[in-house]
Order: sequence, then structure tokens, then C-alpha cells
Amino acid sequence: MKIHNFSAGPAILPRSVIEQAASALLDFQGSGLSLIEVSHRDRDFEGVMHEARAAVKRLLGLGDEYEVLYLQGGASLQFAMVPMNLLRPEGKAAYLNTGTWATKAIEDARKLGQVEVVASSEDKNFSYIPTSYRIPTDADYFHLTSNNTIFGTQIQTFPDSPVPMVCDMSSDIFSRPVPANSFGLIYAGAQKNMGPAGTTLVIVRKDLLGRSGRTLNAMLDYGVHIKGESMYNTPPVFAVYVSMLTLQWIEAQGGLQAMEERNRKKAQLLYHEIHRNALFRPTVTDDSGSFMNITFVLNQSEHEETLGKMLQEAGISGLKGHRSVGGYRASMYNAMPIESVQVLVDVMQALENRLA
Amino acid sequence: MKIHNFSAGPAILPRSVIEQAASALLDFQGSGLSLIEVSHRDRDFEGVMHEARAAVKRLLGLGDEYEVLYLQGGASLQFAMVPMNLLRPEGKAAYLNTGTWATKAIEDARKLGQVEVVASSEDKNFSYIPTSYRIPTDADYFHLTSNNTIFGTQIQTFPDSPVPMVCDMSSDIFSRPVPANSFGLIYAGAQKNMGPAGTTLVIVRKDLLGRSGRTLNAMLDYGVHIKGESMYNTPPVFAVYVSMLTLQWIEAQGGLQAMEERNRKKAQLLYHEIHRNALFRPTVTDDSGSFMNITFVLNQSEHEETLGKMLQEAGISGLKGHRSVGGYRASMYNAMPIESVQVLVDVMQALENRLA
Repeated sequence: MKIHNFSAGPAILPRSVIEQAASALLDFQGSGLSLIEVSHRDRDFEGVMHEARAAVKRLLGLGDEYEVLYLQGGASLQFAMVPMNLLRPEGKAAYLNTGTWATKAIEDARKLGQVEVVASSEDKNFSYIPTSYRIPTDADYFHLTSNNTIFGTQIQTFPDSPVPMVCDMSSDIFSRPVPANSFGLIYAGAQKNMGPAGTTLVIVRKDLLGRSGRTLNAMLDYGVHIKGESMYNTPPVFAVYVSMLTLQWIEAQGGLQAMEERNRKKAQLLYHEIHRNALFRPTVTDDSGSFMNITFVLNQSEHEETLGKMLQEAGISGLKGHRSVGGYRASMYNAMPIESVQVLVDVMQALENRLA
Repeated sequence: MKIHNFSAGPAILPRSVIEQAASALLDFQGSGLSLIEVSHRDRDFEGVMHEARAAVKRLLGLGDEYEVLYLQGGASLQFAMVPMNLLRPEGKAAYLNTGTWATKAIEDARKLGQVEVVASSEDKNFSYIPTSYRIPTDADYFHLTSNNTIFGTQIQTFPDSPVPMVCDMSSDIFSRPVPANSFGLIYAGAQKNMGPAGTTLVIVRKDLLGRSGRTLNAMLDYGVHIKGESMYNTPPVFAVYVSMLTLQWIEAQGGLQAMEERNRKKAQLLYHEIHRNALFRPTVTDDSGSFMNITFVLNQSEHEETLGKMLQEAGISGLKGHRSVGGYRASMYNAMPIESVQVLVDVMQALENRLA
């Protein structure tokens, strides 16, 4: 049976990428060795790292003032590395709190200095993106989360910031064009739109580094990784390779513009059904809804079991909502075809017909 | 042509493991999804993480007082995490300096507190393991490196330590039985004997935690990872899976005793030839030689080109010595068959015959 993978992450990847990865595992570029058996100092793998970094710059239109790193530890380690590298001990950082991950980022930054939360949507279980707030001009940076995987909200228009913007784009990077040049630092765990779990993309404007005045351990210092060309120590070879393939796949599909068109069509299809079908309702405000992770609930929870069975029979996997929201969450990353969304919509309509 | 992979790391892995990994990439346990597309909260992957942690305890004979973690960032991040978690700000840590990685571990610890280097072999380019030193009884821990990948030395007998021993076993873990219960903490980048690059094994005796009194960022706190059962955040799914397969392969081969027998036979074969063949000499003292990474040089460098060509024709890959030592380094991890070592010895003898 064909499985429709709505998992929030690790998540669906292009089948051609997975097949190429499986083939490289058996024989990496005709070397007679597996991808995971060759030295990272091997010329072929150095080429992979170089291309994986270059593809990011091509897709986002970034110039030499930015450096691209493939690190480890997930976005969660960036919650610490960002303030370590950018927040002066006597300085202040500004954060927008739009969900679980933003909250964790704030908690970690508070261990390293002063944090001002400029706005928070916690009052309504993070069901909206705050829009009226003031970013302090004396902050070392302003941190925001572009897409909230758990709560299904997404920033549609980024603010004008008087200080460098730092953005956790883990769950929507490469899903749409963004004004990448207006950010000081962008980071993203790979395991949604850009690859498998195990590597974290960090894009940083070089002139922001070296200002915090802290003594950092080597692996926690962006400057050390930049000097090492993202190979200060052994990189996560497999995750970087699959990320490179995925970025090349995005380019072959037409780049970020094409991704956005596909993703908006998928989202419109599902949002339309959630609003049309009286059995369901969204959990977010209309202007804050994500087109990556769409969260919704049944109006009458007594239908959960029936729906669960129908979803399973249709091959729909990974649709369970996060426990903080309940209900359902459809994660529809770049690699998901609209056909899978149609299967989900068909099930929602079939439930409506059955209960009519 | 059959390639004989003497790479120092990432390095040779069992072919059966690579084939199983390639198969799981295409279809993970009959789910219809790739290993790298399923949620880490999926029951099947939770089973993988559980088994990967349990296999470490089985192989090393460890009880409930130890916790096993699969982290990210390589051994290099442990150079920071070890002192963060175990060194009191007003305390002292003792280190044995036996090479490049130990030196880096010392540098990183010095950023966090007082370090006493109890002995160093830097005076002779790390060609031996110091044996007469005193471990201070007031140190929070004593740190050593069991095997020095770059310099080709290895600790054969671990000292009796009056304080908890912390050991970087990156390049010889699971290659031989060790008295694991005499260590407070063991860490190892996976990419030699236990899996692909991208995960780092940390084994820690729980009673040592919570003593340093430092405020730690979440991802740098062993306690946080233990509480999260090694899934505080998304783990490096692929690297953990392949590590699990490799550990099961070691068990199926007869465990650490069998690994040691195989590895000693391979090492004896090569060391014997290095000593017998007048064209070559070892770069380490006889009692300090590693049986994982054997370093040697040509007595007359003018033969380098000829030998290089002969090695290539024989399919020998990854034999180039690290620039700090020069010459040759044969890394012969668990998965390397003795036949590959014989091919290398044959080439060394063929060179001798050709020059005779």
C-alpha cells in the first residue's frame, strides 16, 4: 500500500533522493567504497561539502558576506550557540515567543544573559503570530521562529528590524523565497525540508561574529567552524550528502518560487476542506496559519476512532497532532505531492458522507 | 577492483551492515517509508534507540549505574561537555597528554577551569605513552585517550586512578575488552569501530552528574539527555541505526574477545613485517604501538613514489599518514579482514624484492 507520510519530522523526502542515497551507501561515486566508509578529507567528499554549502547560497541568493555551515546538535544546540556567539555578557537579546521551540530558545538564552520577550502568543496557546511589538534598538539581536511546527502557525511577513535578525527556520526553510539578506543568522535542523536528521544548517553574516567577547569552546564557536570550512572536525557525512541531494532536487524542480507555489496549492486544498467541512475546525487564526504544518481538530471527538480507522485504511501516516494541541497535524513539506493531500481531503469528505 | 580501505575514519564498516542500512533507507522494517522519513517518536525507531543503547551495555558488561547516550558533535564537543558537567568551577581536572586530540581536550577544559597535565609525550612527537605519573587525589576527574589515531599509540593497561577516569575511546572502542566499570565516563565518535560519522557515544556513571554546580544549556547537560532517554531532541536517526547494526554484528562475531583476537592477529602480521623489512621502520616505541592504527615510514623517502604506485595497483586506499607524522598509517578497525592486511604486507615485500 502507498503510504502518505504527513510526519512532522523526520519527514518525507524526495524518492529520487532516497534512491540516490541508498546507491551511494553501496558505492560512493564509483569508489568501490560506501559513502560512510570514505574519509571526510577525501576529495570526493570535500566536493560534496563544498556543493552542499554552495547550493544554500544559490537557493537563497546570498553573497560572500555570509557563511554556510553544516553543524550537529539540531536547532536545540543553536538555542545555546546563538547567544554564546552573538550576545555580549552585558548586552540584551530580544525574542518573539511563538511556541514551544521559541520558549526553549528563550530559556537557553536566559542562561547566558538578559532576554527581552517583545511579544508572546502563549496567552492563546500559541494559536497566532503577534504582530504589534517593538524591537529594542539596543538589543544585540532579535530572534524569531519562522514556522511553529507544533502549533501550525507561520510568519508570513518578516518585520523590519533595527538590530540583526536571527531566525529559526527549521520547519519551513527552502519552502518559499525569503528575504535571506535581511537576516544576520538563520538556522535550521535539516530533518524537515532539507534532509535527514543529523545536521543543522547555520547561515551567518560574518561581520556579526567576534563581538560577544566570550571565551568559547571550540565546537561552540561559529568562527572555528568557518575557519575549518565546516569540517573543523568530522562532519555528519551522510546527513550532509543527503541534504546536498535534496537541495539539488529543489533547484531541479524550479527553486524556491516553485516550491512555494506547490506548497500553497497543497495548503489551500486542505485549509479549504477544514473550513468547508462542518466536522472540522482549524486551531489557529486565519492570518497565522502555516502552509507547512496545518493543525485542525474534530468538532466532536467521538468521531476520532472512526476517522482514525479511515485514515489508516487510506495509508495516511503521521497525522496525529502534538499533545500540546491535540487533534491532527498535516505536515506537507516540499517532497509531499498534492495527491497525498487529496487523499486526506477525500477521507475527510468520506467521513462527512458517512455521518450525514 | 577490490578496495582495501585503511582509512583512519570515517572508516571501513562490515559489508552486511552497509547492505542492511541501504535496504532500510528504501524501506524501514516493512513500513513502506525510508528509515530517514519516519518520526523518531515512531515505535519502531524508539526500538532502535533502545537496542542501540542496550547493546553497548551488553558488550561492555555495564549495569544500571551507567547511562548510554547517542549525542552529536563528535568527540570534539565532548572536550567541552566533560568539563562543563564534571569540573567544578573552583575544582581541578587532570589530563594525560598523548596526542593531538588530548591536546585539544586540554585546551577546551582550560577554558572552563584549572587543568593539571600529569604527563605528556609531546617531547618525542607523541611516539610513546607515558607511564610514570601521579594522578592528583583532589582532581574532579582524570582524562585520558585510549588510542591515538594520528600518532599510532595505544594504552595497553589503564592506570589505577584515585579519581573518576574519563576516557576518549573514539578510535578503539569495541576493539577489545576493557574494564569499563573502572571508568566514570567513556566517550567515542562513532566513525571508526561503531558506525558512521554523525553520532557520539557517551557512557556515564550517573552518580558523577549534578556535582559541577554550573548552569548548563540544555543540549550541553548530560542530565537533560538522560532524562530524554537520549532523545531530548531529534537524534541522528541514521547514524544511531547503523551503530546499532554494527554493535549487533560485533556480538554475532563473538563480542569484544573475538574482536581483540582478530585485531591482534592483523596487527602482529603488519608489525612483524615493519620490523623484518629493512625498508621500513615504525614511528612509535614498541610497548606503545596501537593495534588499531599502525604508523610507519620508509627509511629512504626516495622510494615513496614507487611504493605509492604499487599500493594503488593493489587497491590499497587511505594509507597516507597524518601530516604530523608523515609516512604511512594503516588503520585496521574491526571490520577489516586479515586478507587486506596480507595484501599490504605483500606489497611491502614486493617492494623489497624489486629493490633487492
